[in-house]
Amino acid sequence: MAKYVCKKCGFKTDTDKWLWKCPSCGGVLEITGKVEQPKITLGEGNTPLINLFGFGGDVYFKLEYLNPTGSFKDRGSAMAISQAQKLGIGCIVEDSSGNAGISVAAYAAAAGIWATVVVPKGCAPGKRHLIEALGAEIIEADDREAAGNRARERETQGCAYIGHMWNPWFIKGMESIASEINSQLGKVPDAIITPVSSGTLLLGLYNGFKKEKKMPRLYAVQASGFSPLYDAVHGKSESRPSKLADALQVLNPPRLEEMKEAVLKSGGDVLLVNDEEILTALAKLLKAGAIVEPSSASALAGYMQLSNSGKIKHGEKIVIILTGSGLKYPEIVSLISS
Amino acid sequence: MAKYVCKKCGFKTDTDKWLWKCPSCGGVLEITGKVEQPKITLGEGNTPLINLFGFGGDVYFKLEYLNPTGSFKDRGSAMAISQAQKLGIGCIVEDSSGNAGISVAAYAAAAGIWATVVVPKGCAPGKRHLIEALGAEIIEADDREAAGNRARERETQGCAYIGHMWNPWFIKGMESIASEINSQLGKVPDAIITPVSSGTLLLGLYNGFKKEKKMPRLYAVQASGFSPLYDAVHGKSESRPSKLADALQVLNPPRLEEMKEAVLKSGGDVLLVNDEEILTALAKLLKAGAIVEPSSASALAGYMQLSNSGKIKHGEKIVIILTGSGLKYPEIVSLISS
Repeated sequence: MAKYVCKKCGFKTDTDKWLWKCPSCGGVLEITGKVEQPKITLGEGNTPLINLFGFGGDVYFKLEYLNPTGSFKDRGSAMAISQAQKLGIGCIVEDSSGNAGISVAAYAAAAGIWATVVVPKGCAPGKRHLIEALGAEIIEADDREAAGNRARERETQGCAYIGHMWNPWFIKGMESIASEINSQLGKVPDAIITPVSSGTLLLGLYNGFKKEKKMPRLYAVQASGFSPLYDAVHGKSESRPSKLADALQVLNPPRLEEMKEAVLKSGGDVLLVNDEEILTALAKLLKAGAIVEPSSASALAGYMQLSNSGKIKHGEKIVIILTGSGLKYPEIVSLISS
Repeated sequence: MAKYVCKKCGFKTDTDKWLWKCPSCGGVLEITGKVEQPKITLGEGNTPLINLFGFGGDVYFKLEYLNPTGSFKDRGSAMAISQAQKLGIGCIVEDSSGNAGISVAAYAAAAGIWATVVVPKGCAPGKRHLIEALGAEIIEADDREAAGNRARERETQGCAYIGHMWNPWFIKGMESIASEINSQLGKVPDAIITPVSSGTLLLGLYNGFKKEKKMPRLYAVQASGFSPLYDAVHGKSESRPSKLADALQVLNPPRLEEMKEAVLKSGGDVLLVNDEEILTALAKLLKAGAIVEPSSASALAGYMQLSNSGKIKHGEKIVIILTGSGLKYPEIVSLISS
């Protein structure tokens, strides 16, 4: 049977209860042992891996934005909500104003589990509306931090806290992307470039590829002003905070140490991109027919940096992960034409 | 080599030129003979087929809204644009304010083909913006009919007219959905329920299933006020025009005779649903985690009619096609809560 293991203090226990962090030391948990397939599904995963016009035959794009709720988070939500259902949990709570909130609300709906999403004031009305349409209760908190606190308060009222940045099931759900890329490409790619905020996708890639023949170089791309991983690897950066990369604005990811290990041990790096680079990349993607959100485009912006600095060799197979859908952003053209 | 054949006068010719209707009599064309796989792809097709919470294990939903631009049209666009590219066409034009316009713009971008989309005045700004972001030129016409005329004028200036309601490549591209459903379900379903406007998806299903072991009953669902197929089968209906089913507002589909044949020969029927039924169905889908547009929900509304009238027998395997993404509609919750 699968076990929870604390990455910090080594505490170990059965997965017959709901835990999102170590009950002994407060550290982050991982899941070891055999894990069942998610029972709750909305058709997540098995997203296309394709070339795009203008980028050559060695550059592949993994279209995670075609997941059921428009982002890669669905892999994690399917696993976490399936586990919640298995444990007989009837009520979950999450704090997020964006893709994670939409994803968790949809999978809770698919499982018949009551969901509450705590959003910070100023959350985009379109995303908020979608969370409500999916049947979740919305609570508004003053800011992002207050939203987390309000969500965790609910725990004492018998609701399970998802906490996707912490939740070991959520991270586990991400691993499926690695074997998928391998089977689609017919081999392990030389490098993978992905946007990074709380690190769930980066860690899913790292943990997933540990089970494959080879580890690709993992390049994490962060947006300027929201760069805890970049700062941890390269020293504190000073730059104007990105306004565009709204899905990447995480300042204190609980799994920072693991994220650092993933990048360094894989032989990859952390890259920092600004809004100008993101806009240029976004326009290129749209004009190749890929309808992505600005945060997704940061991965291509990172690739352009690597390419310009000669860090990608001729003939190397590269996978760029496109994480979130642009269909949520009808105002997208006013961004790229301004 | 594949040939064009006119369904009306029998005119037959090679597919080494671009035709969207019969040059002899103006009738609709079909493609016969072996057709190559589309070369231009954005990852269309292979969409999930899943059960949804609350609908039982015999009801399957085909998630066409998870296609690359958020609708089933991508199957047709991939085929039509691949053919255009094969013929060395550098410029295409289409008239549409909605899903077809977005889809054609994206695939033209993916092929490096210049695209113009003629939209009627009053086209939703979000959809218009997306078409522009994909690099297409926008021309505005007074209404839907004028948009068609303006688009066809461009033909004389050397641009290929796509005309998805007419285009035989577009219809051909839709056929892949039939074998996909079979292999996902492990058998031919007993009945399929799909929203219908210009009939491209209905005909794709019908032509596709002709190549399989059995023909499922095909149920076409139309929205009140936009029901040429319903009227052709059941006699003229009088009802308040649907405001919600904005993707289904086609009054004169050029392939009406074929559509009638598909429904009647398969043993299916045409159903008419109103906005109240669409809203009820939309709310049910969202509350099961499926983020669809209102027009998609008409298929579920049709299923509910069939189910209530006893036309679906216990144990029959039913497939409901969900055609378009709700991510394009951030205002969706104000619809279902009003």
